Formats: sequence, structure tokens, C-alpha cells
Amino acid sequence: MNGWTVAQSELDATRQHHHETIFTIGNGYLATRGAFEEGYPQDRRTTFLHGVFDAAPFVVTELANAPDWLALEILLNGERFALSRGTVISFARELDLRNGVLTRRVEWESPRGDRATILVERFCSLAAPHLVCMRASITAARASEIELRASINGNPLSEGAQGEKLAHWEFLAQGLSRAASRDERDGDVFLHTRTFQSRIELGAAMRVIATHGKETAREFWDARNAPTFVLRANASAGETVVVEKYVSYFTSRDVDAARVVEAALQELNAVTNWNDAFRANAAAWQVEWARTDVVIEGDEEAQLAIRFNLFQMLIAAPRLDDRVNIGAKTLSGFGYRGHAFWDTEIFMLPLFIYTAPHIAKNLLNYRYRLLNAARAKAKANGFEGAQFPWESADTGEEVTPTWIPSYLDRSQLIRIWTGDIEIHISADIAYAAHQYWVATGDDEWLMDKGAELILDTAKFWAARAEWNEKEKRYEYNDVIGPDEYHDHVNNNYYTNRLAQWNLQTALDVLEWLKSHAPTKSQQLVEQLDLSPARLEKWRDVIAKIYLPALPNGLLLQFQDYLERQAVDLAALEPRTISVQALLGIEGANETQVLKQPDVLMLMYLLQNEFSRDQVRLNYDFYTPRTDHTYGSSLGPSIQTIMACAVGKPDDAYEHFMRALRADLYDVRGNADDGIHAASAGGTWQAIAFGFGGLRITREGWTIEPRLPQHWKRLAFRFFYHGEQQVVDIGGE
Amino acid sequence: MNGWTVAQSELDATRQHHHETIFTIGNGYLATRGAFEEGYPQDRRTTFLHGVFDAAPFVVTELANAPDWLALEILLNGERFALSRGTVISFARELDLRNGVLTRRVEWESPRGDRATILVERFCSLAAPHLVCMRASITAARASEIELRASINGNPLSEGAQGEKLAHWEFLAQGLSRAASRDERDGDVFLHTRTFQSRIELGAAMRVIATHGKETAREFWDARNAPTFVLRANASAGETVVVEKYVSYFTSRDVDAARVVEAALQELNAVTNWNDAFRANAAAWQVEWARTDVVIEGDEEAQLAIRFNLFQMLIAAPRLDDRVNIGAKTLSGFGYRGHAFWDTEIFMLPLFIYTAPHIAKNLLNYRYRLLNAARAKAKANGFEGAQFPWESADTGEEVTPTWIPSYLDRSQLIRIWTGDIEIHISADIAYAAHQYWVATGDDEWLMDKGAELILDTAKFWAARAEWNEKEKRYEYNDVIGPDEYHDHVNNNYYTNRLAQWNLQTALDVLEWLKSHAPTKSQQLVEQLDLSPARLEKWRDVIAKIYLPALPNGLLLQFQDYLERQAVDLAALEPRTISVQALLGIEGANETQVLKQPDVLMLMYLLQNEFSRDQVRLNYDFYTPRTDHTYGSSLGPSIQTIMACAVGKPDDAYEHFMRALRADLYDVRGNADDGIHAASAGGTWQAIAFGFGGLRITREGWTIEPRLPQHWKRLAFRFFYHGEQQVVDIGGE
Repeated sequence: MNGWTVAQSELDATRQHHHETIFTIGNGYLATRGAFEEGYPQDRRTTFLHGVFDAAPFVVTELANAPDWLALEILLNGERFALSRGTVISFARELDLRNGVLTRRVEWESPRGDRATILVERFCSLAAPHLVCMRASITAARASEIELRASINGNPLSEGAQGEKLAHWEFLAQGLSRAASRDERDGDVFLHTRTFQSRIELGAAMRVIATHGKETAREFWDARNAPTFVLRANASAGETVVVEKYVSYFTSRDVDAARVVEAALQELNAVTNWNDAFRANAAAWQVEWARTDVVIEGDEEAQLAIRFNLFQMLIAAPRLDDRVNIGAKTLSGFGYRGHAFWDTEIFMLPLFIYTAPHIAKNLLNYRYRLLNAARAKAKANGFEGAQFPWESADTGEEVTPTWIPSYLDRSQLIRIWTGDIEIHISADIAYAAHQYWVATGDDEWLMDKGAELILDTAKFWAARAEWNEKEKRYEYNDVIGPDEYHDHVNNNYYTNRLAQWNLQTALDVLEWLKSHAPTKSQQLVEQLDLSPARLEKWRDVIAKIYLPALPNGLLLQFQDYLERQAVDLAALEPRTISVQALLGIEGANETQVLKQPDVLMLMYLLQNEFSRDQVRLNYDFYTPRTDHTYGSSLGPSIQTIMACAVGKPDDAYEHFMRALRADLYDVRGNADDGIHAASAGGTWQAIAFGFGGLRITREGWTIEPRLPQHWKRLAFRFFYHGEQQVVDIGGE
Repeated sequence: MNGWTVAQSELDATRQHHHETIFTIGNGYLATRGAFEEGYPQDRRTTFLHGVFDAAPFVVTELANAPDWLALEILLNGERFALSRGTVISFARELDLRNGVLTRRVEWESPRGDRATILVERFCSLAAPHLVCMRASITAARASEIELRASINGNPLSEGAQGEKLAHWEFLAQGLSRAASRDERDGDVFLHTRTFQSRIELGAAMRVIATHGKETAREFWDARNAPTFVLRANASAGETVVVEKYVSYFTSRDVDAARVVEAALQELNAVTNWNDAFRANAAAWQVEWARTDVVIEGDEEAQLAIRFNLFQMLIAAPRLDDRVNIGAKTLSGFGYRGHAFWDTEIFMLPLFIYTAPHIAKNLLNYRYRLLNAARAKAKANGFEGAQFPWESADTGEEVTPTWIPSYLDRSQLIRIWTGDIEIHISADIAYAAHQYWVATGDDEWLMDKGAELILDTAKFWAARAEWNEKEKRYEYNDVIGPDEYHDHVNNNYYTNRLAQWNLQTALDVLEWLKSHAPTKSQQLVEQLDLSPARLEKWRDVIAKIYLPALPNGLLLQFQDYLERQAVDLAALEPRTISVQALLGIEGANETQVLKQPDVLMLMYLLQNEFSRDQVRLNYDFYTPRTDHTYGSSLGPSIQTIMACAVGKPDDAYEHFMRALRADLYDVRGNADDGIHAASAGGTWQAIAFGFGGLRITREGWTIEPRLPQHWKRLAFRFFYHGEQQVVDIGGE
């Protein structure tokens, strides 16, 4: 175990979709699931490109599974290689996290008894993100004819909410590149296609080269929507035939629609050979890991797993595009359709803020770019300011489904309320914007964008606050907090407190602007109508917002939380489903069981506001009331941090491993749908803010290490105000 | 004009989908829309096979657009022929109704200036219904290389309810037939595929032969899901290259799943040459027309149009399969997804009962086979007996969507109530079963199947009847009648009266059975628990069912119909949308405007029950209250019959032509979605029972001709008790 390789040594058809998820590779422009090149029954082969959405039933819009670059058929003396046929003598797959390369080696015996070793390597170039590369090496046991059919499949399908299969691509054209058309042997092929409803054009180009083995024939099959190069070679016993396949993608999001094919073909012309492409990719990865790597000594599993989680974040992170975000399942599966949630701001952004602030800025700019859509949502609901959508895709409109097919009976529809009333996301985004500023000191961004975002969300919170005349207080009623087991609740502590924070921070930022950027300050005052009366109202809400708590310092999940029924969670064990699935949506709503601990989450976000004793009181109260195993996958990393905060690093370790294993071991049973992005992002926070005890303020940073007993060393790096900082606990 | 040819002489891209609908060809096993072989932007190319349904969002299940046999690309000196490129010098398309052959002749100039005449003929063999045939003849103006690429496209798409594109087919295998694999030049190719959710397997096979022209090369492109034969030929100036393409289909509905590919390949082996295949098809059509043709002299438009409507019925009629029905849009479009409604029993079945009783029997057997599903529906709703679904597909379960996307805003869902409360269909089916018996004298069928169906629907009606203690009467409340502008109405006359008829007919049939088939009678009494008490209840409902009417004999559409608002329909002219679209669903509901005249429909079905004066009274009352132009497409044929009944054959003619033109001239603006099957079927009834004045009883038949003034002759044939009868009015 070298700490960098995720390995699979046996084929297990029952875990096919799980393995596809964890063997996803990507480069922040696109990502491809770990499906087999030659196909496998019921595989979910996807390549998702950031921002390439198309309309879909129920879910409003979804990432459109892009034309498939994996397609490669291998024929051994005329028999088509497939893991579902013949005999698999050995099977090994490795994901090299250091370089983002997925390798599979199969020894296969054909139905007629011919044997070959088939090695396929592939990566999505981090150095040239429009480029994906594959190399197949086939070694036959006896003299054989090897045939390879390399295609771009223009008919990829998506799986819909009721199990239907959706097509998103309308064929426009294909052919050989003009430069190459006189001699097919060296030509590149292109496919030109377009999403049906969003009408995003895509050009893909493919180059296929035999680099070892005597090529005896080369054909081009111009079959519509499946342009295919066919190469045949005669190999002597033990000789290896090697074929390289390079595919490039450009869409009308990248270049003018008229140029997508040309750009894709040009991208291929920049390819010299496999080694050069590989080296450039490896060099780019080296830069990423120098910023992001976490070293854990004394725990091989945790070492590998933390890198796996960081890898999943790195391949999903948009480096060159600030019009996209990271979906709740990254680019690795159909789950949540590529929609972005608060998962980004609260769970993933800290990783990027501290290790790759340029990526964090892209993600925040995405929100800033969609401020007008957030304003429209607020207005449609009768409020001022900016109300961000619970689920967000390309336009910033609310894309939460209002009705979705029931999991139990797909012919029945269930009303989804999060898009209507899970309002805390607007404060979460403001929080992340502020955190970015605190950590980076990027005053320019705050002036240009962040301030407007924080001020306009504050405006929303003031408008949304309801005055309770009887109690003389402001309230936020009929909401859903992060704990989604309870909907239509009143005065969710997390929501109310973070709204208050948003309002106060807006006032602070406005003050700061007045002294640091008076012109901008004046402009925003006019643009957002920040009159003295309005600011007075903000102060009034801040002062009089209802924050439900007991005199002893116990913060209440929401107003009447203690009236809900207590449940002995231990008595429900063993279970393999969530408490909500066990008791039903209505049933769970009536209990005190939490999908995730809102209150502890808030204490983490505003950690300087609470005493250690108060944290401990709330930790002890809420921990046994939380569905840690099958509730929210967002919970464990935060629970880790809070366990560390109350001095229980070994309890923390249990939660940490639950987060680390979420996808690698599919501990929640739903990794088929894609990576749990918030869990993956949260693992870095658990390392830095939990075990490392890192605290960041405008003035500087401190650490307070609280390692699990068996850990020998924990090291990580982060940026503070533009300078990389090194934390190395227990190191030599 | 020869009365047999539907012709199009100009390409009109704006009418593409309309033309695809009317140029649909088929053979009762499958049908293919009139899309162009080489494709056209936004075309809706479909081949639907009866009974091949697969799950789909919102609409529950839909006919799965099958692998496309049309796919044919033609290259002229390397330039791909397409009507959207180069110059179309002339364009002509003809549908030969007599033989079911669609022919297109195009003179085309390529972008580079090469010219060719391209003639493509195709038909779905009525003699060998698993076989479809195509022939392309290309004549180049100068010596040219002609290339043809003939494929089966395994990636056909369906258009979903929200504009999404659905894929229904999972690729399983493809290849050359074993017999042919040693020499590709003469080989056949197969495709093996399966619907994703219903898991119906399909084997398709293709043979491609060049019969004229010097073939210079032939290749097979084994591209996945698009197996393609490529033929090249060098043609001298003016020489014609001819290529024939034969495709066969078998599904696991036809043969064992393991045999679908073998069966498809065998079907091709039965093909000798084009002329033989053509002759066999033409001979089969001759038999059909000998039963079905209607001759109208003095009205060329009506002559052609009636044949067109009959043709659409004939190509949709299942001759060899009694597990399927005819959808409301036949097999000709995505509309209503292939679901069968009462349209079959009331509008289409009379045509078949009288001209092709073997087809009528298949259609009725479909309902009989699904009696258990109807019983389950009744039971789920708390009733005894059999309640047929409003929309029916393969299983007989209710497949009416409960929610569908709004036409105006696809993100909004509209509740559809017809599946819940449009209950008259159970009586409609019983009515059709009885009518079949009356017309055919098929006592065996009545004993074996029809009686059970009529008795069990009666059982439902007795259970569904609500006793109104205050009024001392039975009622059917909260229903939708055939007039769907009014939903949630009480005591719809049509429903109540036909329920009463169903109950009475059940009693009559049981009496008949007792004397003609005492064993069967006894068996049904036991099986259906037809106790004396139950039959007494039936008699009580028959006697006390509420039939809302005025003392003068005006039958009331439903209980409080006269309290709805009167609307001057003439004042709404000119309009191009329905009154419901104009006033909204709720708005139309509050008026007296009818989508179709329920009451007149009932008077037609039970014509011996009403005096001519009473018919006239109701005709005069309801006619001006009906949305004839954009209401139900089911209305005009019935309105024709009733106009004839009241002695107004020229008014009748106006309604008749509206029915005849529904699809040919797209008078309702929605022919894109497929043929209006009920309208098409109704035209024959308008001929026979309207203009012909045919009346059928158990004792015999009479006619009472009422021709439009300008008609010189009307002739048609029908079967009565197994013997073909000839009606020839005005003939020599």
C-alpha cells in the first residue's frame, strides 16, 4: 500500500455502479465514470462536462451525459472481448490518485479458447482539460489477429427519475477532418452534436494511432452518430499491440458555436505522443497535490482514503470557468443531476479557500453571476434582496423539483418543499463569501463582488423576517433547516442565527467599504437602496431575532423541538436504512431524531461565539439524537470537528472514518449515484479544523492538535492571505 | 385524380410533421411515419409495433419507437444527399392507398453542382407483416459514383411529455447472419435489442441488394447499434442504380425471446425479389379493399379522403394478434402514446364489425383478456365487477396519467381526472361486444367471452350506482361524460343511460345464455355470483336510475347543465383553438359549450329508443352549443349521422368533411401527433349509418339513403351474419 492507489482486484458485477463511481476520473472540465471501455450489461457510462445542462422531466434540468469517448471494442481473432463472456482469468484495476490515471489489466480467455492480456490506461488531462487519453495494450498468447474499434458514441443516455432513459443530443454532423480527408489512415474524426433543449453545441474529435504492432488494415466507419476507426494488426505470440486514442471536447460554452468542431480538432493537433501527454498531466497533478495533500502516518486506510476524497474534489473543481459550480454528486453520477446546493459553500468551499483560493473564487463568482436570478426568486416570493435557489444549475433559477416520483412506487409523486422553504442557503453563501475574504484577504473581490452578495442577501433576510407582535420578536417560520427530517418548522436555530449573522456581517462590510472603497460603498448604497431606515431595520432584526434556547445554554433545533417524540436510536439497530426511511417522512418528522445536527453545525461555523462548556452541553445532547449512519452524509465530518472540539478525538475518528468511507466503501448504499461531494469536501475540514484544531481570524491562525491515539503524524498545507502555511503535527 | 393517391408536390418544412403523419404506412403489425429515409432536421421518425410498450415519465407507458428501418444515406460523388442541402429541383411524394406504397421522387442538385434523380419506394408488407421493403433508384445526370449506406438504427428516440427525448432500447447484440458470415457481400445483418423496462426483446434483420448498376464495393460497418451496409457503384450518365433494402422484425411477443433474431433472419430468407414481394402485398391489399372500399361518385375530394381514412384504419388494425388494441392516434405518432380509449369501441369497431369481423373480434378479445385487470381496478375503487381503464395499454391497468405537464408551462403539472372518473368506457365496451354479436351472429363468441364481459361490467354499474334516498333514485355522481369540457358532473345522461342499457343487456344476455348455453350460464352465475338478489338489484337500478330530462323530451347533458352559462359560439369566431383553450379549463366548465354532444351520441347508439321528433328537438338544442371545429375530433362523424337522421344531409356533409379532413388537411392543427383514429373510424359510420341510413337489428337490416345533393353514387359493403352485403345507392 503506497497511499496513492485505489485498487480493485476482483470483478464484482453486483458492485458495478459503485465501482464506476469511485473509479471516476476527471480534470475539472469533465469527468468520466469508471465504466468499462467495451461496455458491460447495465453499465452507467457517463462523461459529464461542467455547465452542459439540458431539460429533463421532474428534475427541471440535468447534466447531459456527453458523447462517450470510452467506446472501444477489442476483437481477438474475431471474438469480441467482454468481461461478461469467455473466462476472466485475472482482473485488476487501479486508480492512481497522484496522476489521475485509471488502469485495468485483464487476462481473458475467449469463448473459443484464445487468450490475451488486455491493459487499458486512461486519464483526463489536467494539463489540457479538453483532452482525454486512452491507451490499450493487447498481448495475445498465440499468434493472433487483433482488431480494435474505437468510436465516439453520440447516443449516450441518462437515467431519469422514473428509471426512464433520456437522450440529450441531437446529431448535427460528423466526418473526417478536412486536412486528413485525403488519407484516412492518419485522419482525425469529428462529431458535431447539440443538446435538444438548451441547444448547447458540442464538437468532439478523435485520433486513433497504433504505436506497436503491425497494422494490417485501417478503416473508417462513418456510421451516423458512431464514427469509428477500425484497426487490425497481426501479432505474433506474446507480442503486444498498442493503440492510443485521444478525444477532445469543445462546446459552445467554451468557444463560438461555429467553432466547436474546429477547436476540438485543433486540440488534437497539439498532441504529440502518449508520453508527452502523460508527463504534462502528471506535472499538473503535482502542482495540485503540492497544495492539497494531507499526510497521515500511522493509519494506512485513513491516508489513502483522505487522498481519495481530495482527489474527488480536485477532479470536480472548475479551474478555468466561473460560470459553473460543483454538484452534490460532483460530475460522477446521475444523483441530483449536477445541481449545486449549500453543500458547496459549507462543505466544499473551505477546502478550496484554504488550498486553492483561485478555485474558491470561481465557485463564489458563480453565485455572484447569478445574483439577478436570486433577486428574481426573492421578488417572486414577495421579498426584497437576493434569495438563492436551493438547487442551482446553469441559470440560477430554482431547479429543485416540486414533485418527484416516490422511491417506493415510481407512479406516485411526492411533493418536495426544499425549493420553497429551505432558505438558509442564502446565509450559507454569504458566510462562504465572507470566509473567503477572511482567509485570503482578497479585498478587491470583496469590493467588486462579495460585498454586494452579502448586502443583498441581508436585504432578503430583513424582508423575510416576520414580526411577532405578541412576543415582540422577529421569527422565520415555516422553514426547513439543514436537518431535513423536520420540515415546515418554525424558528430553526441554525437559520435564524445565520440570518442574524448575515445581517450583522452586511453592516460590518458596509462600514469596511465606507473606509476602504467609498465610491463602491456609495454605489452599492444607491443600487441596493441601503437607506438609513433600512439599516436601522436590519439592526432591529439583529437585536430582536428569536433564537430558541434553554437558560442552561442548550440551543433548540427549532421552536418546539423538545415537544417531539424522543427515540432510542440504539433500539432501532441494526438497520441499513435511514430513520426517515424506517419511520416514513411523516413519522420521522414527529420525532427528535436529526438527519444532521444543525446546532452543532452552527457552533462550528460561529465557533468564536460559544464557550467550550456550551459546545459540550449541546454536543452531549444532540449527538445521541442524530442519525449518524444513514442520515445526512454531510453530518459526519462536522461531527468529527465537534467531537474534537469537546476533546473526544477517538469518537471523532469514528465519525471521520464514516465520512472517509462514504464512497470508497459505499457505507450508505447509494454511492452508485455518484460521489458524496459534501462528505468528501468535509473530510478536509475534519482534518484541518477538527484534528488539527485550526482557527482562522482576520488577525491570523492557530492550531490545537487533537489526533486519534494511533496517528503518528498529520501534515497539511493551507493558504492564509496568499501565503502557503505548513502544519506538520508529529512530524520529524 | 384517380381516387387512390394522396399526393404532395412541394416540400414544405413547416408542415413536416403533418406530412409525416399522413404518409404513414403500415400493415397492422407495425407502422412507419412518412419521415425521409436520409433524415431531416427535427423529423419525427417512428416505427411502432403493436403491443411493444415501455414505461415513460408521466404517461405511465408508451409505444416504444422501434429500431429504425428507414435509415438510408445516399452519396453522390461523395456528397451526402439531403433535402436541407443543395437544391431541390423537384419534389413529389405519393401514397398509393390501393397498395400501401409510399413513393418519393426528387430531382436534386448537390452543393457542388452534381445532379441526380432519386426515387424511393417503400411499403410494409400486408402479406408478410414482419417484413418492410424499400427500393432506391438513383439516376445521375453525369457519370458518377453512387454510394448507399443502409442501416438499422438501434437508437430511435421518442418525444416525451415535457419535450424530453426518451430511449427505450438496450443494445444486446448485432452481427452478420451465421450462414452469411463467410461472404459479407451477400450476408444479412441482425440487431438484437430489448426495451429497458418492459424487457421486450426485438430481433431485426436487414438484407441489402444492388439489382441494377455496377457494384464496385460493398462493406459492412459493424458500428454498435447502427449496423450498416455500404454499397458503391459507378453509374454512367443517365444510368440508374437500384438498391433494395428488406428489413424484418420479430419480438418476444411473437416468438420465444431466444428466437427473435433467428425468426427475423428466416423472414428475410422468404424474400425472393422486389416484384414478388410487391405482388404479394398488392394481393393482400386487394382482399382488404374488397371488404372495405367505399365508392363516392360526384365528389372527388370525398372519394379520396374516405379511402385515406379507411386506409389509416386498415394499417392500424391488428389482424393476427388479439392482445393489442388501436391507440387513439393509431401507430402513427406520439400522441396518447399508443393508449386505447373508448375511441376503439364506439368509433372504430363498427367499421371492423361490419367490414372485417375477424379484426373486430381481435379487438374485443383484447378487452376480454384484460378483464382481470378491470376487476382489479373496480376492486381498488371499492366496487364489484369489471371497471375498464380509461386508457389501456398492454396490461389493462389504468395508464391515464394522473399529472401531466401543462401545455402552456411545462414546468407546471395539471391533474388529469379521466382515469379516475370517466367511467362510461365500461358500458361502451359492453355495447361494442353486444353490437358485434348482433351484427355477426357469433354466438360462440358471446358464450365464450362476450357474455362474461357484459355481465361483469353490469356488476360494476350496479355497485357504482349511488342511492339518493331523498329523491328515491340511483345516481352516478362525480363523473366525466364523453363531453370532457365538463368534469366532476353529476348524472351525465350518456353515462347513466348506457349504464342502464348495460344492466338490461346483461339480464337479456343471461336469459339468452340460459336457453342457448345452460352450462356456460350456470358457470357464469357461479363465477360472478349472479344470485337472484343481485339480479333483483340490477332491475332496481334499471328502474330507478336518474335520467335527467325536461318534460318536452330534451335530454339533459347532465344534472345541472342548464344552470351553466350560455355562450354565443358564433361571437367567438374566428378562432383557431378550442373553446377550452380559449376560456381555460375552469372557464369552459362553467359554460354550456360541449366538446362533443353526449346526448346525440347516445341517441345514435340507442337509435331505436327515440322518436324522430325527440331526436330533432335535441339536435336543434345541442348543435349550436357544440364546439364542432376544435372540440372533440370524435364529434363530427356522429354529428353527420344525426344531421342525416333529422333530414339535413347538406349540414351533415359539412360535418362529414370536417371529419374526413381532420388529418389530410390538419384542420385541428394537431395532426403532427398522429392520425385522429376515432375520426377516421367514424367516417365509415357516417357513410353507412348517416348517408346510407343503415339500420341493423337481430332480424336484419334496412337502409334509408340521404345523400348530399351533389353525390351521384354511394356504394359500400358490409357483413351481416357472415354474409357480405352490398349497398349501392345511385349506381347503374
